[in-house]
Amino acid sequence: MATSRYFALNQFPQGMPRREDFTLHEVTLPALDHNEVRIQNRWLSVDPYMRGRMTGAKTYIEPYELGQPMDGAAVGEVIESNHAQFQLGDTVRHMGGWRDVAQLPGSDIERLPEYEVPPQAFLGVLGMPGMTAWTGLNRIARMQEGDRVLVSAASGAVGSLAVQLAKAAGCHVVGVAGSDDKCQWLEEHGIQAVNYRGKDAAALTDALRDASSEGFDVYYENVGGPLLEAALANLRDHARIAICGLIDRYNDTEAGAGPSNINQLLFRKAKMEGFIVMEHWGYYTEFLSQVAPFVEKGAIDYRETVEEGLESTPDAFIRLFQGSNFGKMLVKLTG
Amino acid sequence: MATSRYFALNQFPQGMPRREDFTLHEVTLPALDHNEVRIQNRWLSVDPYMRGRMTGAKTYIEPYELGQPMDGAAVGEVIESNHAQFQLGDTVRHMGGWRDVAQLPGSDIERLPEYEVPPQAFLGVLGMPGMTAWTGLNRIARMQEGDRVLVSAASGAVGSLAVQLAKAAGCHVVGVAGSDDKCQWLEEHGIQAVNYRGKDAAALTDALRDASSEGFDVYYENVGGPLLEAALANLRDHARIAICGLIDRYNDTEAGAGPSNINQLLFRKAKMEGFIVMEHWGYYTEFLSQVAPFVEKGAIDYRETVEEGLESTPDAFIRLFQGSNFGKMLVKLTG
Repeated sequence: MATSRYFALNQFPQGMPRREDFTLHEVTLPALDHNEVRIQNRWLSVDPYMRGRMTGAKTYIEPYELGQPMDGAAVGEVIESNHAQFQLGDTVRHMGGWRDVAQLPGSDIERLPEYEVPPQAFLGVLGMPGMTAWTGLNRIARMQEGDRVLVSAASGAVGSLAVQLAKAAGCHVVGVAGSDDKCQWLEEHGIQAVNYRGKDAAALTDALRDASSEGFDVYYENVGGPLLEAALANLRDHARIAICGLIDRYNDTEAGAGPSNINQLLFRKAKMEGFIVMEHWGYYTEFLSQVAPFVEKGAIDYRETVEEGLESTPDAFIRLFQGSNFGKMLVKLTG
Repeated sequence: MATSRYFALNQFPQGMPRREDFTLHEVTLPALDHNEVRIQNRWLSVDPYMRGRMTGAKTYIEPYELGQPMDGAAVGEVIESNHAQFQLGDTVRHMGGWRDVAQLPGSDIERLPEYEVPPQAFLGVLGMPGMTAWTGLNRIARMQEGDRVLVSAASGAVGSLAVQLAKAAGCHVVGVAGSDDKCQWLEEHGIQAVNYRGKDAAALTDALRDASSEGFDVYYENVGGPLLEAALANLRDHARIAICGLIDRYNDTEAGAGPSNINQLLFRKAKMEGFIVMEHWGYYTEFLSQVAPFVEKGAIDYRETVEEGLESTPDAFIRLFQGSNFGKMLVKLTG
């Protein structure tokens, strides 16, 4: 009898999630239904947006239900199929993550696009994070060659791609990160680096001005908090802020004060816009056709931080909020 | 010998401007130069944006200089002309306000457009405030028929036009104002009214939800402060916020905290954009052709609050920040 081990929330985290908020369950899988496929997961994705699904409230995505299998992006291998389009051994991507074995209708599964890249790249540089970086820069912030571009969380899964895409588009790029080695990595890629550690809004404002005395045309916003205030203080006329995430606040138990200088949007005739990458998924093939060739030839340095084993999934998730991951955080299953 | 009496700032106001920040001066005018025109002003405009010119710092417009003649929009009558295109008795609009007699090059003067409206309408409903209302709704917020539209400072010079333009475009309109008679005026025009007096951000949030349980597609923002926070809490998906002004903060001597719920832009995939009407002035004739016929036939109820006499100009300006004006604040000169 086939079984699946999956994580469920046993309570909604208060503030920073803790390991004990998650429980590993085991379930016996029913026989495959018509058109269903069984998948042995190889790679699980953990992503900051999942924190928003752990509050019990609907934001832009359905919340996780207590005691129910969690989900998320995953890549795995077909081990049983009742669907004509999927054969044993196919490598596929789907949303049945946070578990070792997924059983899904074929309509919820996609074969990986044919590029010469490792399969887990479709959870990162060529998956949702890469598409998020590309969408924010191109479809929201309308990045132009020569723009001065600021990226926060610049060594994270999304930010580390955003800085490289902006650089490749001929922009002057400043990246904000939280450690010396992350800043060094940015500098090695021609990105001017700002270390945010130990800096309040005023010090960040000065640091951004030092990095680009002319200010910024584009701000790719992953963080919020004092960094948003510092960025608002350093906008150029007609600047565009793409709000991809506000990770600074995801674990706050009460609302903090917002930036005191929203009036900069008025003075700079600037735009700030939130977006959800899912609404732009119709452009995924356009994104792939632009970015995948760069990835194939090694022109994009995408980093991965890998935890091993299903049991480590909650720890991998929690590490996202400690700033200890570099690039895409993944869980590798060896089952 | 012709003279001109003009106002100058003798100090930059700290917080709310006071009468003693302004001094009336008199100057003897030189003989008219080639292409110059002398104008007896009949109507002076005072506008909230002028507060931003009283800080000594450049925002989106040059600051007033201490001791130098202030300026602003005005309508007057040509009393002497060395310019072929202007004759004695012509009614013209120009930026030589805050004074009784203006002397300007003809290139800085425009004849009033030919519509059957009182001349001071070109300082209000068909001038900068009207153009500002129209631009924010149409060019920034991309208002569509059927949208749910929220307007703050809804009885002010700009807001009172924004609510009527939105209503005429087939939108459901909620206006926020600060007194019972202003709210009554709104209700008489089919605008749902919310009185902001005595309400903090939480109470305003509830009041806006009561006024439109479905939330808002468009927020025309003139105010800032707790009302912006309440509006952010009541956005619909893909809402657009046009930031026209943030009058709540113009007189603050230190920066206040911003809205604690900027994350709503992300959850609602919403856009917030500041604009300066001057950058859209190329659309002025389009605005006029759409709005002036309504004004001619009395279909737009534009209000004026009129102070008499040049000496009252600073008082008229200060009243803008006390919420005591209704519609366009004007100074009428009888010289």
